[in-house]
Amino acid sequence: MHISKFNSNPSIHGILVQLPLPRHMSEEKILNAVNIEKDVDGFHPLNIGRLAMQGRDPLFVPCTPKGCMELLHRYEIEIKGKRAVVIGRSNIVGMPVALLLQKANATVSMVHSYTKNPEEITKQADIVISAAGVANLVRGRWIKPGAVVIDVGINPVDDPESVRGYRLVGDVCFEEASKVASAITPVPGGVGPMTIAMLLSNTLSSAKRMHGLH
Amino acid sequence: MHISKFNSNPSIHGILVQLPLPRHMSEEKILNAVNIEKDVDGFHPLNIGRLAMQGRDPLFVPCTPKGCMELLHRYEIEIKGKRAVVIGRSNIVGMPVALLLQKANATVSMVHSYTKNPEEITKQADIVISAAGVANLVRGRWIKPGAVVIDVGINPVDDPESVRGYRLVGDVCFEEASKVASAITPVPGGVGPMTIAMLLSNTLSSAKRMHGLH
Repeated sequence: MHISKFNSNPSIHGILVQLPLPRHMSEEKILNAVNIEKDVDGFHPLNIGRLAMQGRDPLFVPCTPKGCMELLHRYEIEIKGKRAVVIGRSNIVGMPVALLLQKANATVSMVHSYTKNPEEITKQADIVISAAGVANLVRGRWIKPGAVVIDVGINPVDDPESVRGYRLVGDVCFEEASKVASAITPVPGGVGPMTIAMLLSNTLSSAKRMHGLH
Repeated sequence: MHISKFNSNPSIHGILVQLPLPRHMSEEKILNAVNIEKDVDGFHPLNIGRLAMQGRDPLFVPCTPKGCMELLHRYEIEIKGKRAVVIGRSNIVGMPVALLLQKANATVSMVHSYTKNPEEITKQADIVISAAGVANLVRGRWIKPGAVVIDVGINPVDDPESVRGYRLVGDVCFEEASKVASAITPVPGGVGPMTIAMLLSNTLSSAKRMHGLH
């Protein structure tokens, strides 16, 4: 299989499996085949386990969650002791970003499709990270005044005025939320470019590790 | 090393490392040496990663968290859509039980030593699981009327009337909380025996899996 060739090729430092895969391929099998040392996506269960555990560190932190944390750090948003709400619990964003926030000593709550009062819980948060994949789910009234909002959603909505017939919006109703939040990321142009930067950062770390540079 | 002998011995179906280890031994190294197929404790990071991920299942669920879930199931406590608060975020109880509650579609918040208003958050919970290791931390006023409380703490407190000079109490002030909760586990005699039962259950599953019985 291609992946094992990439695994054993020392000039390749990172392997990214572009998801979703065609239906006839097993996502689990293919992701598991990636050597954990080259899993720059950070999706290997061993990486996720280390992310979840205190006193352990993953080889790579998944790119989008890492990008969210990088935004918080660069803008000097305090995390320790803050209430954080993560909306959505996907393997690629919601779950790992919740684990990262917790590692940074936030008090984390996860909101998902079975949550009965998402607005009430989200309104308690100092930091809101939404990765639900639902256009305009998070309204202005969900946001505590002064909260920091990171919008990971990228959702197409019909737009007859656009050449493509649609445009991309986030999970957060930006117009409303930006009046209440102290800081908020736009969609597009917020988390998206961060994800790509973090993928490069992970690949660089991998190359450094393989060549014994730190 | 002993562990590799146990790993390769087909008459051994489960390996449990009794923690804490003496200071000169590396907990991480020794736990990682246990074959994941025999990791009846469920502490291997690969197991934890699978526990955290949607669409994956661990080979073994850690015993104390599994015992908590078994209690909820046996007493027919609804979990889906309920607010759950886990107090404490250890690798062996708090973190995995939070992941299990979330897998069962509860809305989970984790409270820990950096949480600023643990009482206020805990009071929102329909299900409280405390594994903080602090005697009488959780008072009656922390509990929402009718909530279900599982007390994982086992804390020694001075007791001159006891032969040993101390007695064991939970994290929850039982006298107060039992008046407010709809169900509550005692300490000792609550979660403790469940943990041992789940260890046997995991070992039995392991033996069945090795012999191709399901």
